[in-house]
Amino acid sequence: MAALGARWSASLQASDMVKALTFDTFGTVVDYRGSIIEEGRALGKKKHLTVDWEKFADAWRRDYAPSMNKVRTGELPWTTLDRLNRVILDKLLVEYKISGLSEAEIEDFNHVWHRLNAWPDAVSGLTRLKKKYVISPLSNGNVSLLTDVAKHARLPWDLIIGSDLSHHYKPDKEVYLTAASLLELKPEQIMMVAAHQDDLRAAKALGFHTAFVKRPKEGPNGDHRPIESGWDYVVDDFNELATKLEA
Amino acid sequence: MAALGARWSASLQASDMVKALTFDTFGTVVDYRGSIIEEGRALGKKKHLTVDWEKFADAWRRDYAPSMNKVRTGELPWTTLDRLNRVILDKLLVEYKISGLSEAEIEDFNHVWHRLNAWPDAVSGLTRLKKKYVISPLSNGNVSLLTDVAKHARLPWDLIIGSDLSHHYKPDKEVYLTAASLLELKPEQIMMVAAHQDDLRAAKALGFHTAFVKRPKEGPNGDHRPIESGWDYVVDDFNELATKLEA
Repeated sequence: MAALGARWSASLQASDMVKALTFDTFGTVVDYRGSIIEEGRALGKKKHLTVDWEKFADAWRRDYAPSMNKVRTGELPWTTLDRLNRVILDKLLVEYKISGLSEAEIEDFNHVWHRLNAWPDAVSGLTRLKKKYVISPLSNGNVSLLTDVAKHARLPWDLIIGSDLSHHYKPDKEVYLTAASLLELKPEQIMMVAAHQDDLRAAKALGFHTAFVKRPKEGPNGDHRPIESGWDYVVDDFNELATKLEA
Repeated sequence: MAALGARWSASLQASDMVKALTFDTFGTVVDYRGSIIEEGRALGKKKHLTVDWEKFADAWRRDYAPSMNKVRTGELPWTTLDRLNRVILDKLLVEYKISGLSEAEIEDFNHVWHRLNAWPDAVSGLTRLKKKYVISPLSNGNVSLLTDVAKHARLPWDLIIGSDLSHHYKPDKEVYLTAASLLELKPEQIMMVAAHQDDLRAAKALGFHTAFVKRPKEGPNGDHRPIESGWDYVVDDFNELATKLEA
């Protein structure tokens, strides 16, 4: 075994100790950008709108972190992601000069976040991982949003951990510690899986194991920032993770 | 349609309005009594114990409500069902003169509540209901317990709502209202499914729809108390419920 090297041994240990995998969702499990662009185009066609939906999707996502930060710093009281998304959407409708939508149509478009499509490997990879581990989203989405996404995209979660269970947004430590508490596991028995290194950094600081999943098509131009060292696993997709974890 | 009668029309309305079904778990979805007796007998054989495991299982369950009531009245601070079950178990080990178990063996036996077997119709009925509704346990069990039971018994829940999400036990109204809040549904959009009429009574008082499932083998001699009127549905099992709800 020694010939396989220290990294391989470390990984084997992680896969033995870990009981549950928690997944960032937007960008890691589901392709929010492609889904918003697709629904935006369909809405545009129906309503005769001329909008650059790629820019629109990126703008929606760009305001996402600052909007959660208002809750994280206490500027806003606890507000679900559905509500935060709606505030951003209302602003974007003005910026992009989109008019003629009824309240019901705006609310329905805000619910595109409940109908996000999975990356092609997500369902098959999760189905394999579920046989060996408890699997759950650990997302800034609220429970009802994540439940709808799971039904829409057929994600086989064992349970749903949304930000409304801790009333905190990542990377606040309360989010990760609430997950550990609900799962009745120690941080080192949980592996955080994400395409975002700030998420993994926060989880690792609390003792979680980590797996970085490359999702080059997530952002407008892909995330080409250097991959930090120190993650237990770095993989191209969930099936590679399942193989590495012998699931 | 009028010829079908008022009750049938009321039921049709309920099935249209309802978006989620929440299920009592112990006794309604899983056969806790049979599972405890089975594991008790296996433990007894291994440890050469002479115990009436049917009486033991009934005694464990008998102390369940009084023990939760200590939390409900504030005599105890929030305590998970796993911990309450362990306190009862420690007492029963003395009463039934069961000795020679290590701490690990006692803790493992307490975890029989994580390995309860489903009633024969549960998985097939839930699988049908899941196609039309969001389905979740709404149980006094904690999230990790319910997650383990679901994996053990292959229950296809969309999400897990345990008592540790509200820090209350049924029939406290906070349990039901927490479910509605997490699901972002009004009470009348949720149907509580249970084999216990006190559970349905509490849910109905808050506006939930209700389905009573007969589980005559749940208790030591079956529950032969009269079935109250006023439940939306009274069924023999989950497949009958699925048929009545056209799922």
